[in-house]
Amino acid sequence: MKILAQYSAILEEALQHTKFPEEPHNLYDPLRYFLQLGGKRMRPMLTLMACKLVGSPLEKALPAALAVEYFHNFSLIHDDIMDAAPLRRGQATVHEKWNAHIAILSGDVLLVKAYDHLVSYDAETFKNLYSIFNKTAVEVCEGQQMDMDFEQRTEVNEADYLEMIRLKTSVLLGCALQMGGIVGGAQAKDSQHLYDFGEQLGLAFQIQDDILDLYGESAQVGKQIGGDVLANKKTLLSIIAKRNADTTQLEELMNMERTTNPELKVARAQELYTKLGARSYCEVKMHFHHQKALEALQSMSAHNTNSELLELSEFLLTRSF
Amino acid sequence: MKILAQYSAILEEALQHTKFPEEPHNLYDPLRYFLQLGGKRMRPMLTLMACKLVGSPLEKALPAALAVEYFHNFSLIHDDIMDAAPLRRGQATVHEKWNAHIAILSGDVLLVKAYDHLVSYDAETFKNLYSIFNKTAVEVCEGQQMDMDFEQRTEVNEADYLEMIRLKTSVLLGCALQMGGIVGGAQAKDSQHLYDFGEQLGLAFQIQDDILDLYGESAQVGKQIGGDVLANKKTLLSIIAKRNADTTQLEELMNMERTTNPELKVARAQELYTKLGARSYCEVKMHFHHQKALEALQSMSAHNTNSELLELSEFLLTRSF
Repeated sequence: MKILAQYSAILEEALQHTKFPEEPHNLYDPLRYFLQLGGKRMRPMLTLMACKLVGSPLEKALPAALAVEYFHNFSLIHDDIMDAAPLRRGQATVHEKWNAHIAILSGDVLLVKAYDHLVSYDAETFKNLYSIFNKTAVEVCEGQQMDMDFEQRTEVNEADYLEMIRLKTSVLLGCALQMGGIVGGAQAKDSQHLYDFGEQLGLAFQIQDDILDLYGESAQVGKQIGGDVLANKKTLLSIIAKRNADTTQLEELMNMERTTNPELKVARAQELYTKLGARSYCEVKMHFHHQKALEALQSMSAHNTNSELLELSEFLLTRSF
Repeated sequence: MKILAQYSAILEEALQHTKFPEEPHNLYDPLRYFLQLGGKRMRPMLTLMACKLVGSPLEKALPAALAVEYFHNFSLIHDDIMDAAPLRRGQATVHEKWNAHIAILSGDVLLVKAYDHLVSYDAETFKNLYSIFNKTAVEVCEGQQMDMDFEQRTEVNEADYLEMIRLKTSVLLGCALQMGGIVGGAQAKDSQHLYDFGEQLGLAFQIQDDILDLYGESAQVGKQIGGDVLANKKTLLSIIAKRNADTTQLEELMNMERTTNPELKVARAQELYTKLGARSYCEVKMHFHHQKALEALQSMSAHNTNSELLELSEFLLTRSF
C-alpha cells in the first residue's frame, strides 16, 4: 500500500522532530532508542487517516497521532518487563539494554509526555481528546492485567478472552481513529463510528493473529509457526478446541500439551484444532468482526476518501493463511 | 495543628468516595490498599489551603487535590520497586504484598487516574492545571532518575544534589499549591508565588530531613537515627563534609564509612560532620530556603487567611534537632 508509506514518512519525520532533553540521559536515551526501533506505526496512521477522512488536513492530527504512538510505546516498554521479553522488533528491549528500573521510569515519563502532545489543541478539543484518551489508557492497563491473570488460570472462557484482547489491543485502535475524527471536526456520531470501526478491526486482527500463529506460513508471519502452542499460551483457538472437546479429545489435547518434540507438537495442534472446529470457528469469528468494522465505516456520513481506511482494513486482514 | 486535622478529615472522606472498579482485582486491590495506608496527605492539603487562601471555598480544590495525591502515590509505588523497599508506612509495599509486575501496572493506572480528577474543571481551567501538572510529573521522574544515578556515582556536588531534591520532592509541593491557586481563581502572579513558596518549603524540608536523620531524636524522627549514614547514602551533610575536608579528614571520612559497628559509625559521623562544618552549613541552607518560602508568601496580594500556610510551614520546619 503506497499510501501507507506516505503516512509513515510523515510520522517518522514528526517523531524525529519531537526531541527529548539530553539529561538525565538514563531516562531519555531509552526513549530515543525505543521510538526509533520503528514498527508499523499503525495506530498513529489511523489517527491521520481518520482526520483526512472527515475532511481536514492530516497535519492537524499529528499531535494526537504522536500522543497515541507515545502511549503505545509506553505500554510496550512496561509490557516487555512483565513478559520478560528480551527482544522487541529484533532489538534488545529497554529492560535488557538498560535495566528494569530504568525501563519502569522511562516508561512512566513517556506516558506523561504522551499527554503533552494533546496540549497543542484548543481547550475544548483538548478536553474531548483527553477524555477518550484517558478512558482508553485505563482500559489498556486492565487488558494487560487480565492477560497476566489468565496465565495463572487453568480455565478461560471465550467471552473473557475476547474482552481481554478488546481491552489490551482494540480500544487503542478505536481511540486512535476517534481522536483523528475529533481533531478533524467530525460530528460526534461519526467519531463514534470511527471508534467502532477500530475496535472491531482490532478484534478481527487479533483473532487473525491467533490463527496465523498456528496456520500461517512462516515467511508471511515473520516468525516461527506455532509459538503460542509451544508456549502453551491461551488463544481463541485453544479455548474453543477445549470447549468443543469430549473426554477423549480433552485427553488428546493434554497429551499434545505435554509433547516435547516441537515439530510434532505443532503438527498435532494443527490437526486437533482443525478437527475440533476451532480453526473454522475462529475464521468465522474473524470475518464477523471484520464485517462489523466495515458496517461502522459505511454508517459514516458520506465522504469519498474513506476508501483509504477500507483499503487499510483489507490490507491488514488479507495476510493469507 | 488543629486545622490540619480538619483538612485531613475532608481528604480522607473524599478518598473514601473515589472508588476503583472491582475487577481486575489484581489491578485495583493494590490501589485500594495503598491509598488507605494513610500518610500525612501533605500535598493535597496544600492544594486545599492555597484555594482557601485566594478566597475560594476549599471544596473547589478537591479534585485537584486528589489528582496530586494520586500522582504522589503512583510515584511511591514505582519508587518502592526501584528502591526494593519492603515497607511503606509500616506496611508491606505493593511489590512485596503482590509482585513487581502488579506494582508496575497498578502504578501506571493510578497515574492515568490522577489525570482523571482534573476533568471535572471547565476546559480553560483544566488546560491550565494540566500544563503545570504534566510539567511537574516529568520533573519528578527526572528527579528520581538523578537519585538513582547518584547511587552509582562517587562524586555528587551540592548543586546537583539540590537540583535532584528540588525535582524529586519540591516541585510537587509547588505544583500542589499552584493548582489550588488556579482553581481558586488566583491571579497568575499569585499562583506563581504559591508555587515558589512550595518549592522553597520543599527544599528546606528536605534539607531538614537530612539533618534530622543524623542529629534528630529517635522519638521525634520516628525512625532509627543515622539511617542515611549506615546506608552510606549521599546527603547534603555528607557532600558538604567531603567538600570541606582536607586530605587527613577525607581519610577519616573513609574510615568512618568502613566502620562496621553501627553505633560507633553514627557517633563518628555526627562528630566529623559537625567538625567539618557540614551541620551548620546545612542549617544555614535550610533557614535560607525557609526564608525564601516566607518571602514568596509575603509577596502575595493581601489575604488574611495566609496565616494557615505560615502556620503549616512553621509546623513543618520546627521539628527540633
